[in-house]
Amino acid sequence: MQIDLNCDLGESYGIYKIGSDQAMMPLVSSVNIACGFHGGDPNTMAETVEIALQYGKAMGAHPGYQDLNGFGRRNMDIKATEVSNLITYQVGALEAFVRSAGGKLRHVKPHGALYNQAAVDFTLADAIVRAIKKLNPQLILYGLSGSELCKAGKQQGLKVVQEAFIDRRYKEDGTLTPRDHDQAVIHDPEEALQQALSIIENKAVQTIEGIWIPLEAESLCLHGDNIKAVDLAEFLHRKLLEKNIMILPPSI
Amino acid sequence: MQIDLNCDLGESYGIYKIGSDQAMMPLVSSVNIACGFHGGDPNTMAETVEIALQYGKAMGAHPGYQDLNGFGRRNMDIKATEVSNLITYQVGALEAFVRSAGGKLRHVKPHGALYNQAAVDFTLADAIVRAIKKLNPQLILYGLSGSELCKAGKQQGLKVVQEAFIDRRYKEDGTLTPRDHDQAVIHDPEEALQQALSIIENKAVQTIEGIWIPLEAESLCLHGDNIKAVDLAEFLHRKLLEKNIMILPPSI
Amino acid sequence: MQIDLNCDLGESYGIYKIGSDQAMMPLVSSVNIACGFHGGDPNTMAETVEIALQYGKAMGAHPGYQDLNGFGRRNMDIKATEVSNLITYQVGALEAFVRSAGGKLRHVKPHGALYNQAAVDFTLADAIVRAIKKLNPQLILYGLSGSELCKAGKQQGLKVVQEAFIDRRYKEDGTLTPRDHDQAVIHDPEEALQQALSIIENKAVQTIEGIWIPLEAESLCLHGDNIKAVDLAEFLHRKLLEKNIMILPPSI
Amino acid sequence: MQIDLNCDLGESYGIYKIGSDQAMMPLVSSVNIACGFHGGDPNTMAETVEIALQYGKAMGAHPGYQDLNGFGRRNMDIKATEVSNLITYQVGALEAFVRSAGGKLRHVKPHGALYNQAAVDFTLADAIVRAIKKLNPQLILYGLSGSELCKAGKQQGLKVVQEAFIDRRYKEDGTLTPRDHDQAVIHDPEEALQQALSIIENKAVQTIEGIWIPLEAESLCLHGDNIKAVDLAEFLHRKLLEKNIMILPPSI
Repeated sequence: MQIDLNCDLGESYGIYKIGSDQAMMPLVSSVNIACGFHGGDPNTMAETVEIALQYGKAMGAHPGYQDLNGFGRRNMDIKATEVSNLITYQVGALEAFVRSAGGKLRHVKPHGALYNQAAVDFTLADAIVRAIKKLNPQLILYGLSGSELCKAGKQQGLKVVQEAFIDRRYKEDGTLTPRDHDQAVIHDPEEALQQALSIIENKAVQTIEGIWIPLEAESLCLHGDNIKAVDLAEFLHRKLLEKNIMILPPSI
Repeated sequence: MQIDLNCDLGESYGIYKIGSDQAMMPLVSSVNIACGFHGGDPNTMAETVEIALQYGKAMGAHPGYQDLNGFGRRNMDIKATEVSNLITYQVGALEAFVRSAGGKLRHVKPHGALYNQAAVDFTLADAIVRAIKKLNPQLILYGLSGSELCKAGKQQGLKVVQEAFIDRRYKEDGTLTPRDHDQAVIHDPEEALQQALSIIENKAVQTIEGIWIPLEAESLCLHGDNIKAVDLAEFLHRKLLEKNIMILPPSI
Repeated sequence: MQIDLNCDLGESYGIYKIGSDQAMMPLVSSVNIACGFHGGDPNTMAETVEIALQYGKAMGAHPGYQDLNGFGRRNMDIKATEVSNLITYQVGALEAFVRSAGGKLRHVKPHGALYNQAAVDFTLADAIVRAIKKLNPQLILYGLSGSELCKAGKQQGLKVVQEAFIDRRYKEDGTLTPRDHDQAVIHDPEEALQQALSIIENKAVQTIEGIWIPLEAESLCLHGDNIKAVDLAEFLHRKLLEKNIMILPPSI
Repeated sequence: MQIDLNCDLGESYGIYKIGSDQAMMPLVSSVNIACGFHGGDPNTMAETVEIALQYGKAMGAHPGYQDLNGFGRRNMDIKATEVSNLITYQVGALEAFVRSAGGKLRHVKPHGALYNQAAVDFTLADAIVRAIKKLNPQLILYGLSGSELCKAGKQQGLKVVQEAFIDRRYKEDGTLTPRDHDQAVIHDPEEALQQALSIIENKAVQTIEGIWIPLEAESLCLHGDNIKAVDLAEFLHRKLLEKNIMILPPSI
């Protein structure tokens, strides 16, 4: 039994440092590296790729909107062709660092508002997918399980990895409970672990309403933006290994 | 007998349009496409690559400093590793558009202040060269004839194309007469043509002091930023063809 | 009888020049100067203020979203406090140039997507209004006639100037016919003049459906982004003077 | 006996947080607030001004080069008029937040490379000074003691506050020992305190060569970028109060 753990890294900018990259790197199997639009810059990208290579992690591009001040988290109305071009630009830039360091870019996972908008907007999702396919059809697409993005990716023949969250409660329709709901976030590590295990072992999750729904996910998304998140990642990593669940990039 | 004519294109940004890209494209054999730092943006890059492909022109990346407001023309004190990363990022981004469109990136020519500083600063030049070599040792480096940049490129085993200017007067030491000199620019098209011919046929140029010096150049740099420049390019293009001098990318 | 004519100017950026600022400046009574976020930069702002002062025009700030690549025309989801801060920053920056040149900032008119979103979203409009009021309650707010922005401005006690368009057809509900409608734009100068006159003299406009609706507007917005627009502005300017309608900033 | 302690604050950007603003605010008498070019953004500026007002601190603008990725620390070749416009823009933007919050902007201190270049380049210094004077001749200029910037400020009749450093060793000519010298930085708090006291009480400092030179300084610059720096600031603040040296903005 195996599962992929992925984390967004390399989101520092100039002297501004964020994320626990050093702590998270050994805990995950796949890393999504920022490409300079919502976060990251050429120097950060070079360094992050270097470290990911040392750890032997599967590397992916993590492109976002060109909105550094909003960290790519603000929705924007952008035309499909413009979104395609944002993807090509950023994935190409990151791929150059990976190639220069002797590695191989493996996947693409959109960031923030782009990720969220593409989860529900097929036109936007399709623009992302087509850009990836034109650039390199071997690249794996990471998206929210059950999203329009994953649907668009499959439709175009991309390899798709669906990801799930272990610290967020799902709703009956398979979407995430919005953050403003007081039960949206799972704070108890043990409960998060149980959600992870039910996804890995049973391809199912118990919703906020208490019922069980099926949930396909080949990857679990972990965060490294605060100490509690890193602690949860360490806890999960340890518990999965104890249960002989291997932490590996998706075997696609 | 043959010569390469190159021109900087794709330097528009958003709704801001500059350069006579449409007029220049048929006149040159090689185009240097801006990569989004001093000019250009993902949409402009996609469009410019598309047009260059239609015309069958040799495509190169034209990376510059991250200084859109100064159009990459202001000198900056940047560390060698940072310069390497600027190059990797921008060349990778452009290469992605070229590859997505079914083409092949052929060369790299630094822009503006980066070009000028690398012409005289070997450390900077070497940082540029090493970034290109690590990314793709097949890429051809374009630089000012006789510059430190060309020297660094040759030293690292890159294919180097030295370029010359037909509308600027050279000094005895082979450098360009600074623009503040009242004889710096050649305004007469006939005189510019003669300079082009002496470079192509005799690998020599007459300096502002009146003496002849040797000048190695496999490419001539043309400008498209104003009507007079486009007129000069058209004049040169026509005259070269009349003299059976073929206009072709360097046969390296 | 009098009317204010206003125009967006100073939207160039670095070497990128747009707009017919020199041609439009003598034709209007009020100018809205870009503040460096969607267009404009410190040098352009200094120059534009200088010229506006020479012509004795009423000067206003023209703040927009921080989206240079999209020229501030792409909708963004921005929190009310963030919008307030965008306004304070940009109006303050422009006001500094006006004051340094010996002038006085008179009004504020939001740009592009910010203008359009604030026309229909009261919360956003109110955030803009409160920022202006806190900074300087003497500043006049320019907004689309009948918009939420004008409503919010009046509610907070700001002086409000409602503007109308002479080259766009209105709908029965007083809003503009969307640009994708083939009758959205009035191309005939004579027809545009008639729309201007009916607004000035009768405070009414004939809608695309053919009926007449009341339209309050103390200012008409002219464009300077292409030759036809400048021609229309010149035509209108001449015709209004012939009819002894004075072109003056609003007498508030 | 009294002295001003100043600190650079408000240099966070979007989600990127730097500096110990909360810890430093109570320890200093004057704060220099970033203006959005090298660091800071509209939201950060609004918040920082709010906090500075609550603490009753003297507020100054801290403008820098438009180089967020380099944090304004990379030298740039910028024309004098361009530098003037950078100053007007940034000081005006910050002044707007201060005024909107009910405060009064008191001083201007250039940042990073702009500060360092203006310390030795009179033309650049003069461009800064003239921009400040035109905007508001009551603004106080902060600069390195003995610098061209202070000289230019005095020449134009600005009120000038010369600042000194307590954790850097001075050379015989009154300049700072470059950072690459192994004795450049004073690590021992007691030694830093002695340097502060000799500046405050005797207007003199012992150089790295061991001799004493005169040093005029009405303000001492403290840093808040790491825990050791905050500790030093707390130590100095406490020790000065114990010696009945009042910590106050310059009484100009």
